[in-house]
Amino acid sequence: MKSAVAPAIPFSLLGRRTAPPDIARLMTMALEQPGLLSLAAGFTDNATLPVAAVCAAVEALAARPGEPEFLQYGINRGRPQLRQLLAARLAAMEPALEAGQLEPQLFVTNGSQQALYLAMQTLCDPGDIVLVDRPSYFVFLELLTGLGVRAVSLPVDGRGLMDAAALDSRLAELQRAGKAGRVKAVYFVSYFSNPAAHSLAEAEKTAVAETLARHGLFVPVIEDAAYRELYFERPYVARSVLGLEAWREFPKLYLSTFTKPFASGLKVGWGVCSDDEWLAAMLNAKGHHDFGTANFNQAVCEQVLASGAFAAHLERIRPAYARKMRALHGALERGGLGAGGWRWAVPGGGIYLWLEAPRGLDTGLESAFCRACVETGVLYVPGELCFGDEVPKNFVRLSFGVLDEARLQEAGRRFVSVAQRFA
Amino acid sequence: MKSAVAPAIPFSLLGRRTAPPDIARLMTMALEQPGLLSLAAGFTDNATLPVAAVCAAVEALAARPGEPEFLQYGINRGRPQLRQLLAARLAAMEPALEAGQLEPQLFVTNGSQQALYLAMQTLCDPGDIVLVDRPSYFVFLELLTGLGVRAVSLPVDGRGLMDAAALDSRLAELQRAGKAGRVKAVYFVSYFSNPAAHSLAEAEKTAVAETLARHGLFVPVIEDAAYRELYFERPYVARSVLGLEAWREFPKLYLSTFTKPFASGLKVGWGVCSDDEWLAAMLNAKGHHDFGTANFNQAVCEQVLASGAFAAHLERIRPAYARKMRALHGALERGGLGAGGWRWAVPGGGIYLWLEAPRGLDTGLESAFCRACVETGVLYVPGELCFGDEVPKNFVRLSFGVLDEARLQEAGRRFVSVAQRFA
Repeated sequence: MKSAVAPAIPFSLLGRRTAPPDIARLMTMALEQPGLLSLAAGFTDNATLPVAAVCAAVEALAARPGEPEFLQYGINRGRPQLRQLLAARLAAMEPALEAGQLEPQLFVTNGSQQALYLAMQTLCDPGDIVLVDRPSYFVFLELLTGLGVRAVSLPVDGRGLMDAAALDSRLAELQRAGKAGRVKAVYFVSYFSNPAAHSLAEAEKTAVAETLARHGLFVPVIEDAAYRELYFERPYVARSVLGLEAWREFPKLYLSTFTKPFASGLKVGWGVCSDDEWLAAMLNAKGHHDFGTANFNQAVCEQVLASGAFAAHLERIRPAYARKMRALHGALERGGLGAGGWRWAVPGGGIYLWLEAPRGLDTGLESAFCRACVETGVLYVPGELCFGDEVPKNFVRLSFGVLDEARLQEAGRRFVSVAQRFA
Repeated sequence: MKSAVAPAIPFSLLGRRTAPPDIARLMTMALEQPGLLSLAAGFTDNATLPVAAVCAAVEALAARPGEPEFLQYGINRGRPQLRQLLAARLAAMEPALEAGQLEPQLFVTNGSQQALYLAMQTLCDPGDIVLVDRPSYFVFLELLTGLGVRAVSLPVDGRGLMDAAALDSRLAELQRAGKAGRVKAVYFVSYFSNPAAHSLAEAEKTAVAETLARHGLFVPVIEDAAYRELYFERPYVARSVLGLEAWREFPKLYLSTFTKPFASGLKVGWGVCSDDEWLAAMLNAKGHHDFGTANFNQAVCEQVLASGAFAAHLERIRPAYARKMRALHGALERGGLGAGGWRWAVPGGGIYLWLEAPRGLDTGLESAFCRACVETGVLYVPGELCFGDEVPKNFVRLSFGVLDEARLQEAGRRFVSVAQRFA
């Protein structure tokens, strides 16, 4: 062979566009800081991970008579019995929905993240637009960037609620600019959201649908309900888009998961898609990605749903997360963060506190505030990562998912101490 | 809301291009045929699935002191200890490679299928060309179709060996047509391949590299070694592209998996990528797909590698697959298929027999032969699905992975009886 030097790889458009996540820079900073307490990662609570339930499920699967099909390939769409159990569980939460009608629309994915990817891949070409909640799930925003898709925020009012009038103006603008046809979907996290810990009232969801319909934009809607079952004391009462009359004419994708409410290490998510063609397109793409989520993990989920271990686990972790939330919230409050002009709501579920810093305080990745937090031994997600457009610099996402109560209190104290220095 | 009827979804280019797999039609036919014996699916042997090993691994993980991190999210690239163990295992097979050098290039995926997808997504735009072995893995060919990428075969001679002179002509043709620049990668299954049960000699691989280099085409090479450890009596001795001098200047991706040699239900695959930029692009895309393969499954694989259960499992299944191969091969031979003009090689590993029917006999999906087989209660994969171009109609892939020996014999008898009717 000639000793030619091979030229650089001419990557695909996607290969050239796909960048490392912004958060990676933060993680690199963090690695250099021993003893750091992370309020950044949206991980779940290690102390309450369902070890016994998973062991029991694996034993039960191994003890089933017949061949150990749970270690064999499954089917692309997901295990039939798991899909039936999930359809029944969802139907029990929404009286207008019937399990028998949901089951054929249901499919299982590698976490709900894969469902988001399949949805966007089948709907959007580069240059297209997706309407997203404000703030929105930052890994979804990165996914859009990776596919060359532009995120446009669904406007909210001063209280963070969906603002139909402002949305109306925004859609009119897009129409005047000849861009309305590029709007290919609308996306929101609707229960105890990531990052804002906000739940969308039925009226908010309906207002979005009605505004879109008024503009003739019957685009597919994706409702991400990852945290719906992770309430502290009582569920947030609101029908999903699957059951709301205003969304009737829209193609709908409802997403949920076992990762947050059960075990993130299993990486099993699921979706319900109201549109046969869209569902088929996503499943065909999934056939190329992996031709099916790990059958073993699905079998474990099926087993814990059927045995009641899943429900029991939720009963156990809800008060644990409530205590953790109060530990962090209490540390911020006792430290006087509110008096310092910071604002946040006390959530009713989920694993996040969403803080608004005093206007003018930059909490971004490259800010002095962020650096000071890392140096003081506490890590957070800069709110700037969570906006599709018109990015404010003064928001912060804190997760109380991972650390125990004592560490949450210490992390809260550290955070407050930095905030006081920047007051 | 107005009772407007929503228009059909305007899918993305990918969404419109992605079709259901051809094989789905076959499966539909099969469902209508009770008592059918399938030699089609590339599933693994149910009887030898590692139930005890997986249970023991889960128990060992649960018994580890400290927090049960195996049920928590992992990292995007894969568990560090698993990556070290895999690097060591590969280095032990190839004396020229060092574990310490391989480990930073190693990443874990949802089966090697996901690695194939990430590789193609980061390298290829629609209209690009990938050179593929002849025949090739049909799910990979479908994946290419889904991405709008054209497969061009690496020519083989009458014995099915890589034909460097014919490749030279083909590349010259592409250059004359101004298409050489669209060639973005070369792909082959190199040990006990799917579908041909063929192993590539070092000389064959080297000839491909030298021919590409002569044309200045230092395109990334993907070597799919999914069946390398699934030999019957002895490994096929050939270095991979990672260790062959002729491929030194090429970006290289070597793929392997736990699915075929251990448990397909776990869906854990892995790759080694020699090019930092390409690896980074694939990992960034994976961050959008799922930000990491299920940590639980990786922990199980790590545990069985470390404990020796993986090696012990291989020792157990190798003779089992050898017996199954002989059961099917014997049934074909005793039935007189060879005398009827059919030809096949007796493989030294893998889970397939690759049959060439007498010229002129159409064994395709829509053929009378295929229909007759289904009616007689035996299913196979038409060879026509396994070619990137210049598709012959007279090949058949039979898998002996799933059925037990008695059923393999019966399936073989049924297949022969149809072949005799069409003689």
